[in-house]
Amino acid sequence: MDHEALEREVTGLAEAARKAAQALAKAPGPLKNKALWAMADRLVSAEGEILAANGDDVKAARRAGLSEALLDRLTLNPARLAGVVQSLREVAALPDPVGEIEHLVRRPNGLQVGRMRVPLGVVGMVYEARPNVTAEAAGLCLKAGNACILRGGSEAHRSNTVIAGLLQEALAEAGLPREAVQLVPTTDRAAVTILGRLDRLVDVIIARGGESLMAGLAGATVPLFRHGRGVCHVYVDEDADLAQAEAIAVNAKCSRPGVCNALETLLVHAAVAPVFLPRIAQKLQAAGVELRGCPESRRLVPEMGEATEEDWAAEYLALTLAVRVVPSFEAALEHIAQYGSGHSEAIVTREYGKALRFLREVDASCVLVNASTRFNDGGELGLGAEIGISTQKLHARGPMGVRELTTTKFVVLGEGQVR
Amino acid sequence: MDHEALEREVTGLAEAARKAAQALAKAPGPLKNKALWAMADRLVSAEGEILAANGDDVKAARRAGLSEALLDRLTLNPARLAGVVQSLREVAALPDPVGEIEHLVRRPNGLQVGRMRVPLGVVGMVYEARPNVTAEAAGLCLKAGNACILRGGSEAHRSNTVIAGLLQEALAEAGLPREAVQLVPTTDRAAVTILGRLDRLVDVIIARGGESLMAGLAGATVPLFRHGRGVCHVYVDEDADLAQAEAIAVNAKCSRPGVCNALETLLVHAAVAPVFLPRIAQKLQAAGVELRGCPESRRLVPEMGEATEEDWAAEYLALTLAVRVVPSFEAALEHIAQYGSGHSEAIVTREYGKALRFLREVDASCVLVNASTRFNDGGELGLGAEIGISTQKLHARGPMGVRELTTTKFVVLGEGQVR
Repeated sequence: MDHEALEREVTGLAEAARKAAQALAKAPGPLKNKALWAMADRLVSAEGEILAANGDDVKAARRAGLSEALLDRLTLNPARLAGVVQSLREVAALPDPVGEIEHLVRRPNGLQVGRMRVPLGVVGMVYEARPNVTAEAAGLCLKAGNACILRGGSEAHRSNTVIAGLLQEALAEAGLPREAVQLVPTTDRAAVTILGRLDRLVDVIIARGGESLMAGLAGATVPLFRHGRGVCHVYVDEDADLAQAEAIAVNAKCSRPGVCNALETLLVHAAVAPVFLPRIAQKLQAAGVELRGCPESRRLVPEMGEATEEDWAAEYLALTLAVRVVPSFEAALEHIAQYGSGHSEAIVTREYGKALRFLREVDASCVLVNASTRFNDGGELGLGAEIGISTQKLHARGPMGVRELTTTKFVVLGEGQVR
Repeated sequence: MDHEALEREVTGLAEAARKAAQALAKAPGPLKNKALWAMADRLVSAEGEILAANGDDVKAARRAGLSEALLDRLTLNPARLAGVVQSLREVAALPDPVGEIEHLVRRPNGLQVGRMRVPLGVVGMVYEARPNVTAEAAGLCLKAGNACILRGGSEAHRSNTVIAGLLQEALAEAGLPREAVQLVPTTDRAAVTILGRLDRLVDVIIARGGESLMAGLAGATVPLFRHGRGVCHVYVDEDADLAQAEAIAVNAKCSRPGVCNALETLLVHAAVAPVFLPRIAQKLQAAGVELRGCPESRRLVPEMGEATEEDWAAEYLALTLAVRVVPSFEAALEHIAQYGSGHSEAIVTREYGKALRFLREVDASCVLVNASTRFNDGGELGLGAEIGISTQKLHARGPMGVRELTTTKFVVLGEGQVR
């Protein structure tokens, strides 16, 4: 397709989405839930078709030399598909945020003023080759009353095409416009750039993906939610319960090393390092973790590798861990301020004052005391399913659930008031 | 200054602001209030100096041929300055939003999870030649714990330089960093463009100004809050109390025609137009309003001018009003959806169902029933002072007060929990 044709194609998609969004904004909760249930049912009954398309995607990706980690994320199987179905049903069970009015107060002149929660409108979703995200993102957008335009990683295009088709059938079955969920029908990267400039039609783009994908969105005029990098720390304070610190560090590093809320750098106060570091190093190495330490860490654990400046800023997403001994609580705060990506930051301490200071002063989407960084997750924090974790400050910070896919408007109930 | 020197200058400003923001984020409420009071006091004692600088600005602007409306906005006088001083003291009296924890709940695993309100960080403020905004914006940013970089319209540069200097002295007196409030020390437009690209240092830019100012921010990588256009409607329903409708329409159009929440197009249901239109036309014309109507309006009020397609989309900001007779409630909704700018939209009706539908279905920062559009204002809606009215959907919609200049982070209080 030439660029102009592509531009027409994507613009047409967005225009249809905007129209669908108007219908969706008015749709009552039960109708949206009916569509969500229908989506789940269709994914169940079309399991064979979905897995066949996914099998083709996986075969092609393997031939193209995709890494095992990415192949794993691309692959659907009956259990994973059941997880997606379950997630759609859970989203249906969440309360409908749309139409809720917050803080309705009576002003001195008798006006009643509140904020009504309303959909954002049209959400663009640009993501990696994970076909499970296709249905989950569409479900969250629908629940919040938004139309969505999906652009998943090209390796998953066959899977996504089948899934998006099923979702559209479910919408039609429920009496909602099919165009409420649309898949960009091409794997051409230029489509992402075009989408990013349709600020007249698209209200926000959620960008989950690597550097090259983000490059396509440079110059975007549509506001972006960036699903940011997670360079996450656990700081073990001199007043830490060391057994607790050990459990937390091991969990944060090893329970799922490939995700953004996994631990990447362990900071240990110098006063407890001689006792703590050899102990945790043994545990981590037994779990297959490669350690890269500062000079003091290596003095205490000589078999540790050497950490360079790059390691402090690294998001390994693997069984690798940077380790640094810090002389003070303040030095830990400074390290985190300098190298952290504002994702998930934890302290382990029994000291009340330091716990409070850490909570107040560390600037991240989630700050934890005596708990694993792995809890920075929509489900764990009580939001229900999430569409991503935002590390930016505006509108939504941290896990983005259904509520974060809405906005508000002021509503004013008057009885003839003038100024 | 050549472009590179300007770039260094603006970047240096932003770096200093970022450092100041770290100190400000930790500053307790009483300290910020002390600085706000000191700011107010200094504006009082330096009244002569401020008015002299402003007099020079006004003289130069008059020579340069600035319109009377803009000259009026540029001009300070003792009463206006007293208003600014009063506003700073009112901001000091507002509750400190920073550190507040919302919805702290206990999760099933015992984790306590909440959202702590924290400053945005560094706020860029780009605005027209209104020197009162300089102190008011700085005060709001300070209260919310943000450092700010101010870039006011070049015609007000002498006034702004004096005012910003006084604000910095007040900060120093209170023991806070002077760099918490900084004025871009040049009127070179390129500085705005440079500021817009410093996403590493600046968290958000609030853009209040005309098209040419916004053009300088095209390609900005810092997220923008746009203080949008107000193409506002009052729809007089067939079930309206016509006396009420008259009072509301006259107030919305005439009480302050130059502001963004003023009425620009009056929509009247065909069933009441024959009675209502001649009556309101007389009132409005007596108040000096020029009317431009659709053919049906002109049939009912022959002395009305003719409205063209451009009139429906016009933000007059003057004593001009477009008038259209609509055949139905739905036609009014359609007109607003097509031509409204999403600012302030009002219906006058006694019919419960239409009031509710209008509130739900009209997409704007503020939707009003039986009240003047002029109430879309921070003070009137109960937010206290405002830094602008946002017509965008993300983060802040409608008047932006102190609270809208903050963000949140998740805080998690654990007792050793792991996943």
